[in-house]
Formats: sequence, C-alpha cells, structure tokens
Amino acid sequence: MTEGRTSEVPGYGYGAPETAHSPLGMEDLDLLKQTVLFTAEDERYLRMAGDVLEDQIEDVLDVWYGFVGDHPHLIHYFSNPDGADADYLGRVRKRFHQWILDTCRRPYDQEWLDYQQEIGLRHTYEKKNETDGSYGTPNHIGMRYVIGFIYPITATMKPFLANKGHSAEEVDKMHQAWFKSVVMQVTLWCLPYARDGYF
Amino acid sequence: MTEGRTSEVPGYGYGAPETAHSPLGMEDLDLLKQTVLFTAEDERYLRMAGDVLEDQIEDVLDVWYGFVGDHPHLIHYFSNPDGADADYLGRVRKRFHQWILDTCRRPYDQEWLDYQQEIGLRHTYEKKNETDGSYGTPNHIGMRYVIGFIYPITATMKPFLANKGHSAEEVDKMHQAWFKSVVMQVTLWCLPYARDGYF
Repeated sequence: MTEGRTSEVPGYGYGAPETAHSPLGMEDLDLLKQTVLFTAEDERYLRMAGDVLEDQIEDVLDVWYGFVGDHPHLIHYFSNPDGADADYLGRVRKRFHQWILDTCRRPYDQEWLDYQQEIGLRHTYEKKNETDGSYGTPNHIGMRYVIGFIYPITATMKPFLANKGHSAEEVDKMHQAWFKSVVMQVTLWCLPYARDGYF
Repeated sequence: MTEGRTSEVPGYGYGAPETAHSPLGMEDLDLLKQTVLFTAEDERYLRMAGDVLEDQIEDVLDVWYGFVGDHPHLIHYFSNPDGADADYLGRVRKRFHQWILDTCRRPYDQEWLDYQQEIGLRHTYEKKNETDGSYGTPNHIGMRYVIGFIYPITATMKPFLANKGHSAEEVDKMHQAWFKSVVMQVTLWCLPYARDGYF
C-alpha cells in the first residue's frame, strides 16, 4: 500500500540514489533515541498509529494546512509574489501525506537517516525549491519555524489517534511515540542549519 | 520569593548588564508564539504551574538529573577527565531550578528574550564554560541534544503538575502551556547554533 502510493508522490526520493547522505550513522541515531526515550515499544505503537491514521491522513493534513493558511508568516513559504501557490501546496501535501506513513511504518535505519538529511536540506537554501522546480516561493524556511512546528504537529495528532476506539492508554502511548519521533526527526532536519561542528 | 532565590543562584544573570542581547525583537517573538499556539491563556496556566511546582522543583530536578546520570553521552557534558563534576553539576542545578520558576513566572518580554540568547550561548563554544570558571567539562553541547531534550523535559513534567489536586483539564492545560514554552525556548536557544541567515 505504501509502495503503491510512493510512485504517485511528486519529488519523493526515499532510498533513491540522488538522495542526500547523512553524515550521521546508526550510533548517533541510537544516542538520539536514548535522549528522547525512544524504544522498541514506541516502534510498535507507531505501527499501530499507522493503521489508525491511514484513512484519516487527509483530515490531519486539512488541520495542518488550515493552521498554515491562517498564519501569513507561515503561508508565506508556500507563496509566490501573487499569493499562495496551489500547485506547489498540492505537491508538498502529497509528500506530507507520505511522511506520516513513513514516520509510522519505515524502519529507522541508515536509509531513513539519509532521508531525514534530505528533508532537512529541502527546507534550506540548498534545496528548498530544487525538488519542485521554479515556483517563485521563498528559498529557505527559518530554523525557528522548523523547531516551532514540533508543537502543532504533535498536539493536533492526539484526537485522530483516539478516533478508532483504542483505550486511553493505547492512545497515549501512540501519541508519546509520535511525539518522540517528531522531536527526533526535527532534530535531524536541523543538521544542515547548524554551523560546522555545532550539531 | 523569586527575588530571594535569585541572589543565591551562581552565574544567574537575568537582566544583568553583561547578559547577551537577542538579535530578535517582540515581533519575532509574537510570530514564534503564534507558531506554537501560545496565548494569554497559556500564560495564566504557567502561573498556575509555578504555584503547583514551587515546592516540587527539587524532585523534578532529581528526575532530570537521574536521567542525565543514567546516560554516559549526557553526563559527559557535566564531566571532567576524572568523571562527573559534582560542584559543576550543583551550580548548574541551581540555575535549572531558577529556570523552572522563570518559565512559569517571568513576563516574556525583551529582557526574557535576551536571557534566552544568553542561555543558548551558554550551551555553545562561545560561553559554555565561561559562567562557572574552569571545570574541565566539554566546552559545547551539540544542538542535537538541546533539541532532543524537548521530549524528556516535557513528558516528565506531567505527573508533578497532577500532584496538587487540580482537575484533569487543568493539569492538561498546564502541561500544554509548559510544552509550548519549552518548544519556544529551545527554539530560541538554537539561534547561536545556526549558520548566518539560517535561523
């Protein structure tokens, strides 16, 4: 199912040869996992979350895109001089959809680590507008909003995790696993933003 | 009460003339607040959290220091070549205590913004070991652990907020306000880590 979607996602390059390589390895990832208390139990709850979210992802994206659309300083990054670019928004949205599935279902291995580096670069001057061609949108998203997004991306997810009749404890465990993964991924996305030797 | 403590906290320089100035202003802070959905209601719940936490802060710090102590890659930053430095740990701990109170009680104004810049710098090559003199501890904390700490510093707080008989809704609102503030502060601490023009 994930495979099926993948080919329809514009600019999605998971595991592709042109994807960036992370300067980090499995040992770095292991220490980061320890820092956010991410364990095998969280992996299991992310798999559960994937099944819970699968048919709700467009609703999640409606919430996130609504939030972005309500804030001029955020929709700015999806806008050309004429205003919000629907085509660009649509392309990014398909990758965002896939990202939710990947967060829940991909093994967090070297290929995954490499793709976090690619995602990070795609928010910066290096690659922001490279993936989708020339849309006239800003060519960099400030690190402040990449980190700041940890809050809305985490908090808004809980009601969706509760929509399929799981116990309060299961919902909370899925949500904590999601929270940990988001913090870990945002951390990795910030690598290309850091001064040499500061990450 | 806060005033009373302040003078006993080694290296605490809130509002002091030698404290760093943030390159950001109130407009930047307002946009960051919007990004993490931080409102006047959160300010009220942080004040409530301050009253709830006041006599539990040493217990919170026991949890956090226990977590750091259990992980060699984290206690590393508090260690000299002979091992963990109890004196250095103790000085930082007093500032950490004060930071919890400041998070709950200080107005988030330009002085506060300046102190976030100071805290950020004190995690980097620029100022890490300047505040406490020469302890032989590492002179920089990687940005990955500054961001990664959002998870433990947020998740471990909830039980303490529930310890004073508030309703589940009040506890959750205090916890969400804490979460938002932590994300916002960690974001600001990362400013000195970013390449020029990347923040």
